[in-house]
Amino acid sequence: MTLLDSLRRGDRLALARVLTHVENDTPEGRAALQELFRQTGRAHLVGVTGAPGTGKSSLVNQLALQFRMAKARVAIIAIDPTSPFTGGAVLGDRVRMKDLSGDEDVFIRSMASRGALGGLARTTSGVAQVFDAAGYDTVIIETVGAGQGEVEIARLAHTTLVVEAPGLGDDIQAIKAGILEIADVLVVNKADLPGVDNAEKALRSMLELAHPRSRELLHHSELLKIDGPEQMEEAWPVTIVRTVATRGDGVEGLAQKIREHAAYLHASGNWTRREEERVTADVSALLENSLVAQFRAGLPEGRYNEVMRQVLGKQLSPKEAVALLIDHAG
Amino acid sequence: MTLLDSLRRGDRLALARVLTHVENDTPEGRAALQELFRQTGRAHLVGVTGAPGTGKSSLVNQLALQFRMAKARVAIIAIDPTSPFTGGAVLGDRVRMKDLSGDEDVFIRSMASRGALGGLARTTSGVAQVFDAAGYDTVIIETVGAGQGEVEIARLAHTTLVVEAPGLGDDIQAIKAGILEIADVLVVNKADLPGVDNAEKALRSMLELAHPRSRELLHHSELLKIDGPEQMEEAWPVTIVRTVATRGDGVEGLAQKIREHAAYLHASGNWTRREEERVTADVSALLENSLVAQFRAGLPEGRYNEVMRQVLGKQLSPKEAVALLIDHAG
Repeated sequence: MTLLDSLRRGDRLALARVLTHVENDTPEGRAALQELFRQTGRAHLVGVTGAPGTGKSSLVNQLALQFRMAKARVAIIAIDPTSPFTGGAVLGDRVRMKDLSGDEDVFIRSMASRGALGGLARTTSGVAQVFDAAGYDTVIIETVGAGQGEVEIARLAHTTLVVEAPGLGDDIQAIKAGILEIADVLVVNKADLPGVDNAEKALRSMLELAHPRSRELLHHSELLKIDGPEQMEEAWPVTIVRTVATRGDGVEGLAQKIREHAAYLHASGNWTRREEERVTADVSALLENSLVAQFRAGLPEGRYNEVMRQVLGKQLSPKEAVALLIDHAG
Repeated sequence: MTLLDSLRRGDRLALARVLTHVENDTPEGRAALQELFRQTGRAHLVGVTGAPGTGKSSLVNQLALQFRMAKARVAIIAIDPTSPFTGGAVLGDRVRMKDLSGDEDVFIRSMASRGALGGLARTTSGVAQVFDAAGYDTVIIETVGAGQGEVEIARLAHTTLVVEAPGLGDDIQAIKAGILEIADVLVVNKADLPGVDNAEKALRSMLELAHPRSRELLHHSELLKIDGPEQMEEAWPVTIVRTVATRGDGVEGLAQKIREHAAYLHASGNWTRREEERVTADVSALLENSLVAQFRAGLPEGRYNEVMRQVLGKQLSPKEAVALLIDHAG
């Protein structure tokens, strides 16, 4: 496949094309992911999430510069819920390019979250895998907000940063509580603003209330788990780091903390475990699709519609319908 | 089943117990949903979403009072992302109960969104079905924020309200843009505040940019669609309603608008269509689970783990693994 060869040789245009295919979940995109699979599993995926107004984008830019100074190739996936209306994704690219433009070893990709309902985590995972296979060492996944979707995306990452800032309203703080649980590193950005001590204190007391990060896999089906001994989760101490991203203050220390977390994941076996989870989930999803397609193809013509009409007419419950369909097919 | 009989006879304690089973996705909960299926499909599901600070909860309370005045039995499902840390869900119940307490025909249920990753929409759908079967005429589903999860939950509803308020920051406004698309009715609450004209103007221009509400079904699998003639979507004109929920201003008109939307859905055939989508998605999910369980049970001992280990060792891609597994089983 020429396009993938070009991608592997570092052709940015080829990379952009493959990313578009994967984002749109085209047959070419799905084929590319299968083809590139053997080159994945090396990149460090870093999730950065936090509410609007925390200066998250500046922080991501500064982090990218830090990783570049250490010679890492850096990709940024910015997930932007505002883009359908404001053109935010495109604008975002341009603004960011000022800091990082001209650097061949940085690639920034903005993705609109609109239109990918229920599939955004999967699409993002695919995009990250492409960057991984293309030889990017660090892939930063930036999401806005604290909805369920954001949490799922954060779970794609090896290392998750939750960004806060002093002086945001209590309402905003409260809604973010749910994502504290997934943080490996907490960042108080805009640490030159008044109220920074209070913000850090509030985070600290929330941290004490929070349970340790849950590493449970979001399996498509529990039935498809790989059997084997349970691995113990070694404790990673969640720390709070202060930064002033606009001036670059504290960002070097933050980058160092992120590298320490990667080292911890490797040493504890959690890196491998996470990779296993990802691969298992991918196989499960493919297997489900194949089984359903096979099953549907084996049903007598019209049978499915006939049973569904009985469900719609409340003559059958969904469970009774499934029993009937499977019985008929078997 | 005694518990379900009690529920059908209006026993609130029985209802609460069944709700807990459904929320926790226990075997009893799943059995109850199957058992109650034939009594569902009648209630009007109204989604109310909007950022913190828009006065959404007061508005929901006032709406419930309006529906009660028209003799409807009202259930409220409040999805509260803050509850794991602040106990918000429990507190929410108490605060709300001041307005609506003592009314036997109102039932308020708060659900924490934490711990239901990826499954919140399904759980909420189950809870709404229980209220439906228990004879509640209107089920209000209240969600906070504008994440992917919130959009999915809003899609459960027949009628979706998006609540805004004047004077929230631009950042907040921007993040909400994505959910405007799913609105059937836009509410500008706190309409006595300065800036209400600007807020309404901004909404109006966003509305003009937005595409018409997409009614595509979030199928588990496209393969499981019911064949049949496509129904045309009649246009519903999205309107903007001003309210001051704390004083009850404008809420009567809003309740009327919600009833008009229900009438429109019935007249256009969209009510039936939505019911078909829900039932089809339920059958699809059950069918997938059954097929996977059946398949896994039919595999030779150790085969699945063996193939998965080859994928983890990058000797097989996920797609090759699925082909091998299915080949072996068939």
